[in-house]
Amino acid sequence: MRISELSQVTGVSVATLKYYLREGLLPTGTPLSATRADYGESHVERVRLVRTLIDVAGLSIGRVREVVRALSDPPRSRHDLLGTAHAVLRRSSPDGAVMDAHDRRLSDQLIDRLGWRIAEDSVARAQLGAALDRARRDGLEISEETFAVYAGAALLMADRDVRDELGRESASEALRYVILGNVLSDPVVIGLRRLAQEHVSARKFGER
Amino acid sequence: MRISELSQVTGVSVATLKYYLREGLLPTGTPLSATRADYGESHVERVRLVRTLIDVAGLSIGRVREVVRALSDPPRSRHDLLGTAHAVLRRSSPDGAVMDAHDRRLSDQLIDRLGWRIAEDSVARAQLGAALDRARRDGLEISEETFAVYAGAALLMADRDVRDELGRESASEALRYVILGNVLSDPVVIGLRRLAQEHVSARKFGER
Repeated sequence: MRISELSQVTGVSVATLKYYLREGLLPTGTPLSATRADYGESHVERVRLVRTLIDVAGLSIGRVREVVRALSDPPRSRHDLLGTAHAVLRRSSPDGAVMDAHDRRLSDQLIDRLGWRIAEDSVARAQLGAALDRARRDGLEISEETFAVYAGAALLMADRDVRDELGRESASEALRYVILGNVLSDPVVIGLRRLAQEHVSARKFGER
Repeated sequence: MRISELSQVTGVSVATLKYYLREGLLPTGTPLSATRADYGESHVERVRLVRTLIDVAGLSIGRVREVVRALSDPPRSRHDLLGTAHAVLRRSSPDGAVMDAHDRRLSDQLIDRLGWRIAEDSVARAQLGAALDRARRDGLEISEETFAVYAGAALLMADRDVRDELGRESASEALRYVILGNVLSDPVVIGLRRLAQEHVSARKFGER
């Protein structure tokens, strides 16, 4: 397809597509003549990924370039892709603080006890450590029992997430769906948690 | 105890405590003389609640006054307290948008299907609706099956939350713990979700 058609399919203006080409976010199409090129389905997917990274994950153009570059370096396993997605999500979140050594030990102990397969330099490990650190600093101790309940709930969700999102055929789409899935469904999960609290409280403390 | 002792116990300066007294956030103590008053455990709890509302939930002094006023109007059931906490949490979150009628219908249908006891004017209902609305607008459809998995996970967490937090003897402490529990443990739950994704992905797509 021509660039005008790529624009129609993706809803992104031709001027913006040309900007993405100049910035290296979108690979050039197959040349048809000195001024025209042909674009395919992989370009449509790339444009959608770039929009998601900018609009939903709130990334800068420079960071988008790093992410799409990581995507282009073969071979990337689906597991590597998830690591890229988590790094994107972590950097786009307001709380990107570094943990001190003590917190690192605490969260590592909790993770060891779960017996999950987690890389030493995992972004998710650091993110959880920062959240546990803040909870303790602000006066909330989470007991081991409660932590285990939350971990069980997280595993139920993650099984679903990985199947729905990471299993997609195209690497670009898998990355996009993992990011969309996390950014947009985290608030759904939080909303459901409040709703479930209301239901449990109504049963336990409510009238009738 | 004297105001100086209340300051020591809570870690809040005497000047700030006097400000809370003037603003009606803290009830006056039992007068001992024209210039001295006696404060008790309920004052300690109130000061802690006020600090949590300001520091952790990010509320303005005006909103804190509303919340502590709601707390003082007896009789308040634990279930009512949860509603107050959810309203506090909702207003302090960045996304306090109003849903349109269509989204309301969508989330109401999903909630009906869960069979949970949720009030018509529930804050949690509105919050979930706004999250579902945004997900759909930004291109993520959450299937019924996935929604059901998330709801099951939320129920596991909520059972624990209500027991750990809302069941506390003092109403002030119950309210404080529900707010602390949600604000500080939401990021822990999100961190655990990412960690669980890594574990599931490592099992499914990782090497070895």
